[in-house]
Amino acid sequence: MVNRKRIQKAQDRMKQQGIDAYLILTHDDYIYFFGEDRYQPRAIIPAHGVPIVVTFAGEEAEVKESLGVEDVRIFGSVGQQIKDVVQVMRGMIGDKEKLKIGVQMWFGTPAFLLNMFQRANPIVDVMDIAPVMDVLRMVKDHAEIALMQRAAEIAGIGMETAVKTLRPGITENEVAAEVEYAMRKAGGHGVATPVFVNSGVRSGWLHGTASDKVIETGDLVVLDLVPRYKGYCANLCRTFVIGTPTAKQMDMFETYKSAQAAGIAALRPGRKMRDIDAAAKKVYTENGYGEFYVAGISHSIGLSFEETPAPTIHPGDSGIQISDGMTVTIGHPVLSVPGTGGVRLEDTFHISGSVAKPLTAFPAELELPLGS
Amino acid sequence: MVNRKRIQKAQDRMKQQGIDAYLILTHDDYIYFFGEDRYQPRAIIPAHGVPIVVTFAGEEAEVKESLGVEDVRIFGSVGQQIKDVVQVMRGMIGDKEKLKIGVQMWFGTPAFLLNMFQRANPIVDVMDIAPVMDVLRMVKDHAEIALMQRAAEIAGIGMETAVKTLRPGITENEVAAEVEYAMRKAGGHGVATPVFVNSGVRSGWLHGTASDKVIETGDLVVLDLVPRYKGYCANLCRTFVIGTPTAKQMDMFETYKSAQAAGIAALRPGRKMRDIDAAAKKVYTENGYGEFYVAGISHSIGLSFEETPAPTIHPGDSGIQISDGMTVTIGHPVLSVPGTGGVRLEDTFHISGSVAKPLTAFPAELELPLGS
Repeated sequence: MVNRKRIQKAQDRMKQQGIDAYLILTHDDYIYFFGEDRYQPRAIIPAHGVPIVVTFAGEEAEVKESLGVEDVRIFGSVGQQIKDVVQVMRGMIGDKEKLKIGVQMWFGTPAFLLNMFQRANPIVDVMDIAPVMDVLRMVKDHAEIALMQRAAEIAGIGMETAVKTLRPGITENEVAAEVEYAMRKAGGHGVATPVFVNSGVRSGWLHGTASDKVIETGDLVVLDLVPRYKGYCANLCRTFVIGTPTAKQMDMFETYKSAQAAGIAALRPGRKMRDIDAAAKKVYTENGYGEFYVAGISHSIGLSFEETPAPTIHPGDSGIQISDGMTVTIGHPVLSVPGTGGVRLEDTFHISGSVAKPLTAFPAELELPLGS
Repeated sequence: MVNRKRIQKAQDRMKQQGIDAYLILTHDDYIYFFGEDRYQPRAIIPAHGVPIVVTFAGEEAEVKESLGVEDVRIFGSVGQQIKDVVQVMRGMIGDKEKLKIGVQMWFGTPAFLLNMFQRANPIVDVMDIAPVMDVLRMVKDHAEIALMQRAAEIAGIGMETAVKTLRPGITENEVAAEVEYAMRKAGGHGVATPVFVNSGVRSGWLHGTASDKVIETGDLVVLDLVPRYKGYCANLCRTFVIGTPTAKQMDMFETYKSAQAAGIAALRPGRKMRDIDAAAKKVYTENGYGEFYVAGISHSIGLSFEETPAPTIHPGDSGIQISDGMTVTIGHPVLSVPGTGGVRLEDTFHISGSVAKPLTAFPAELELPLGS
């Protein structure tokens, strides 16, 4: 169903910013406004008037019904989407010389479509829609928190499965298969990032995935899960050692755990993103790991796995203030020590009043539970 | 491992086209040249000299080792990728006024990164790399066919699981969960498009996904699977009815099956993509479904689910000639009849000499086998 309240808020901000329309090309903002996903999410929210969904002939009746409105205009032809959009833009120009069209500038926007749109449509100036959407999406409403809470529970089910599955001789991909299946069975709708099962030397990687590497005794294994529920994400990361941890592995783990706790303690309305980093870095330094600190321990999360503020992408975001209703993770970068590997713990929090409430819940222990 | 032969071919074509370098921002071409995937695939292939991989500090040693070369340059800082790339470009400029940089213009290229790159780098003119890469990637070598053959087998395992799972009362998402798990267990590395389980009215959709809709007796169910194996895709689609088919459902199914067969018969070196469409459309028309024909029954497939030629995206591709070594699917659009639903059959073929060899293999029957 169209969320008219959110559309109204976006339109108010578009008018303030002098933006004539928002051209939606990504899943996240499509879900934000229309409450459901589509394979090719394309829509136009004009600053004035009704939203326009661009879809295909065979889906017209269904889109009208599921969005619950009659005044959503729908286009038909395959591969003609861009031409249809251009036609709408022409109808909007009136006596203006150019139209200011907002587009999301993030990882999911296809450069291909944006380029076609710009070439076919010389009457538009394209600008980043962030000044409109960041403010809206940064603060989650109750309905959004409920979906993220469910995503967080699904992440917990995935991690429980990982713990039961991990053993010497199994491959990372075999673990990932069980984890994905368990999260799917628990009602999850896929993952926002591939399930990371980073073991051994790969545990030290900043990014990851699961590979055909066999997990061996002594390996550190970093498991990072970002399941989606109705589009919304939660992020849960844990690190385990296969067998008995070495003193060095344990020291790194305890350092990360303390750094994460210091970050959580700093996660209060009025503080800035960089304060969370400062608190965590202090612990690294006190424990002799200062040189390994990678800035950007916290980022916002919601319909995107990583959204504004996201200091590892836009360093300027570290100046953004924490506020009531935000949802952020703490534990984004790995503590990677050459020769030993990496450890990481990440959880998702909801700022509710003056308190940071955890949405994810899973014990943070380096050793696998006995009998697992 | 770096594929030096492919890099040499790309460099030869870049020189012919006057392109100074190819900036890789997508998984498919990264895998094509480097033989493995990365979470953030970023590299530069200059027209002259050695390829440059842009990665992160903690991954440097591993990248050097896994790519098997020392002369791949590697950069360190997080979030500074673009700046690093710009620096490389500056070093390449020599006495030129501008550099011509090729970038892939397809769905996977993030507009966000391309925009940052263009703003930070006024000395470059960005152009579509398609004239270099399409010719290379359109014709598959033996190694690529072997990977696609494996992907096709994994798709077959997925479809077999779907057949065993389908029954009245199960949700589309429950079916998708079992199919994805089976394909993962069989060695698949995720899917290139979400598993479609489109049932009932949703079977008529041009696109799809799996939803929480309960599958009911009488429903047509379109299952579309595009698993990946080491980056390579195969596409297999089948339609089943839950229970006994109606005469209308059976008529649509037989029409689609004949149309696909006519398309396959037209799939010969020297013919054009549009000849496949013409052959299939003729069958629709003879069977009274002419008005429902959606053009673009065939598209190329490989490291991307849909790659050049892809007439539903670029209608001009319908003039491209079929040639030895190409891999294409036949059965892309659904036959959608309002009030009844949709049917579709899609298979993947390898043009080998004068013959179109099927890579996918699964019986095309509308009724579920007894005892399934």
